[in-house]
Amino acid sequence: MAAVAVLRAFGARGPMCLRRDPWAQLSARFCSRDPAGAGRRESEPRPTSARQLDGIRNIILSNPKKRNALSLAMLKSLQSDILHDADSNDLKVIIISAEGPVFSSGHDLKELTEEQGCDYHAEVFQTCSKVMMLIRNHPVPVIAMVNGLATAAGCQLVASCDIAVASDKSSFATPGVNIGLFCSTPGVALARAVPRKVALEMLFTGEPISAQQALLHGLLSKVVPEAELQEETMRIARKIASLSRPVVSLGKATFYKQLPQDLGTAYYLTSQAMVDNLALRDGQEGITAFLQKRKPIWSHEPA
Amino acid sequence: MAAVAVLRAFGARGPMCLRRDPWAQLSARFCSRDPAGAGRRESEPRPTSARQLDGIRNIILSNPKKRNALSLAMLKSLQSDILHDADSNDLKVIIISAEGPVFSSGHDLKELTEEQGCDYHAEVFQTCSKVMMLIRNHPVPVIAMVNGLATAAGCQLVASCDIAVASDKSSFATPGVNIGLFCSTPGVALARAVPRKVALEMLFTGEPISAQQALLHGLLSKVVPEAELQEETMRIARKIASLSRPVVSLGKATFYKQLPQDLGTAYYLTSQAMVDNLALRDGQEGITAFLQKRKPIWSHEPA
Amino acid sequence: MAAVAVLRAFGARGPMCLRRDPWAQLSARFCSRDPAGAGRRESEPRPTSARQLDGIRNIILSNPKKRNALSLAMLKSLQSDILHDADSNDLKVIIISAEGPVFSSGHDLKELTEEQGCDYHAEVFQTCSKVMMLIRNHPVPVIAMVNGLATAAGCQLVASCDIAVASDKSSFATPGVNIGLFCSTPGVALARAVPRKVALEMLFTGEPISAQQALLHGLLSKVVPEAELQEETMRIARKIASLSRPVVSLGKATFYKQLPQDLGTAYYLTSQAMVDNLALRDGQEGITAFLQKRKPIWSHEPA
Repeated sequence: MAAVAVLRAFGARGPMCLRRDPWAQLSARFCSRDPAGAGRRESEPRPTSARQLDGIRNIILSNPKKRNALSLAMLKSLQSDILHDADSNDLKVIIISAEGPVFSSGHDLKELTEEQGCDYHAEVFQTCSKVMMLIRNHPVPVIAMVNGLATAAGCQLVASCDIAVASDKSSFATPGVNIGLFCSTPGVALARAVPRKVALEMLFTGEPISAQQALLHGLLSKVVPEAELQEETMRIARKIASLSRPVVSLGKATFYKQLPQDLGTAYYLTSQAMVDNLALRDGQEGITAFLQKRKPIWSHEPA
Repeated sequence: MAAVAVLRAFGARGPMCLRRDPWAQLSARFCSRDPAGAGRRESEPRPTSARQLDGIRNIILSNPKKRNALSLAMLKSLQSDILHDADSNDLKVIIISAEGPVFSSGHDLKELTEEQGCDYHAEVFQTCSKVMMLIRNHPVPVIAMVNGLATAAGCQLVASCDIAVASDKSSFATPGVNIGLFCSTPGVALARAVPRKVALEMLFTGEPISAQQALLHGLLSKVVPEAELQEETMRIARKIASLSRPVVSLGKATFYKQLPQDLGTAYYLTSQAMVDNLALRDGQEGITAFLQKRKPIWSHEPA
Repeated sequence: MAAVAVLRAFGARGPMCLRRDPWAQLSARFCSRDPAGAGRRESEPRPTSARQLDGIRNIILSNPKKRNALSLAMLKSLQSDILHDADSNDLKVIIISAEGPVFSSGHDLKELTEEQGCDYHAEVFQTCSKVMMLIRNHPVPVIAMVNGLATAAGCQLVASCDIAVASDKSSFATPGVNIGLFCSTPGVALARAVPRKVALEMLFTGEPISAQQALLHGLLSKVVPEAELQEETMRIARKIASLSRPVVSLGKATFYKQLPQDLGTAYYLTSQAMVDNLALRDGQEGITAFLQKRKPIWSHEPA
């Protein structure tokens, strides 16, 4: 886990993937393929990039000039990076981060004008919802690593991740009301993360909350000084990457499955999941290793 | 918004509406009409009063001698003030506050004796529930402004508002168990605002929590020193009043509609609401103004 | 309530029930009967003990050498102690606590090996779920009193109680992933107590949270210094024991019944419960006493 190997670039887009961040010594393992039908011109850079190392994939929103707006092209690129080799045992956890001072400003308003028409609007929101649900339905945990402002659908993206770590300078808002577009889709994720009164004040006033308030109310898992953001996020990611992938995957799916159920159904579903977990090769390896007081050796075999 | 005009009294009850609070320079725009069948005697003052200015309606529980008990008469008066001209574009937001040191002590126990009979009891609880649901179903946001003790159905009223601002001297309790009447209806609103263990400790012990604890646990949106309560509440109200009413209204209705749904249904409903929002005249005005870097001018047209 | 009488032992197991804790002057009122089919050998001590005084039953996990693991024998013993005379008016509230520095470490892993077989595994999880649901469905409030580490199903037990008081040295974790067994059943109770992101970080990383964090996020009702744990818990228990049992019982059942319902159904159910509560003898006694400015005298009559 500690060993850091230099990886070969996965695609033909080396330069996009070489950045001035703490993974700088690495070239990317793979980059977004061109998202079909996203209307991106040949000459435009891809709006996300991604690289993978030791089971940890880092997807980066890479359009800081446009405040990492979740344009249709950005959403499709993000979707492609999330879906890429999702079923491979080489992937254990995903981190979503962003370039520049804004994590993401939400939808690209130029895509929401009258000229675009309501069919296009519908495509934008449906694609966005699909990406958010993809995060929940993905076999591995997805961590948001936030260093800056996350607004509207950008805030929704943070709320939709399984875990969210932010620097203490970050802030969060759903300011759509200010421009006459209530943040109803971001509200779905927000309302499932924070108390109702916090969500409604954010939605009705558009005013931001600080990282500390976001932590207090459940929107974030952890807040750290900016200098420690990368390391703390990587610490959590490395921990998850050290675990059995099928065990984590079954656990994540079961968690979201039982969540909306009544208590009896929830326990019925999860009791069965516990039995299934024990029937996994890694389930027995873990218990055997524990009883033998040794480290488990995961096979990552799905059954 | 800053300009403060003196408004004419709406009804014939001027004196009830002139109070020693920061709106003192205003006479009321309207007052509660007599709630039919509430059994109030001719000579009794109305239990609520209301005035409206610049889109902000302030409804005041005005029976401090009886600790603003939510008697059937009080509930019907409150209902009437909430419903009054609900569909008018002149109304953008409602503030519910109270006269005296007790926000509200909950039901009037004299109405719950054996002599009144269980049909009467049923009417009391059903009317109370109706008022609480009316707040949620109302087209504009409703803010509780609390300065003092809110207990039982009084605490329920705070929990039922969309936003709640309180002074730091406020406190909250559901003490029905002490008098042999478990706060089951207040528990509905409480359980949807705070964590289950907080709600149950309050319900089982009847002990109060402080404003700070209430904020921590999600019962309140904000806590401020008593001297700033009016101004902070008005700041939020003015912000909401400056927005497009149909946008806020669609947003509020959509929020509560998606809340109990599974994620897929919630996103389906809200994606459609976003498209509908964009089709509103104010939806397009907001985005056009943003792209043209000017202030939007809302028409408040419902479609 | 203040008077403390020495009670006679209920069963034949005096020595197990005499402990070095603040109830030391008391012998137990009753002890767990032998849980049938739990495979406990004759010579083994019972894994729980219980005593009851002034309406307060204290059930103690009493296998500190095995970190109070929730073995099948422990679960059945706990179940038996919870169910014992559940319908008696002598019982007003239950406290679940533990001997030793670990509240409970969760399932006994020796019961989850391949050799035990999946039918046995299923019995373990189903029994555990049954105990957790029993706590919720029990007619009296159940308080967890935690002084130390509570992990996996031990954390689930804390989360499943109606109220939880912990010393500030306590901590809470769901570390199953470390040994290849995702804490899916503990996740059911955890997800209903804390925000989703807190639950998922605990489940995915296995790392503990402190008592203060647990309080902040809703897993606990109260945190106190270790020296005050017994007294604070007893203070809450004595308060509940001083109330009308049928009123508390109706309130608890109604609370959990309305919790998963939509708002309209929740108010329909609880309005009816309020009317039923008023029809209880203690419902009328409470209101009459209040209006007569005297202390109520509860009959504890169920109807």
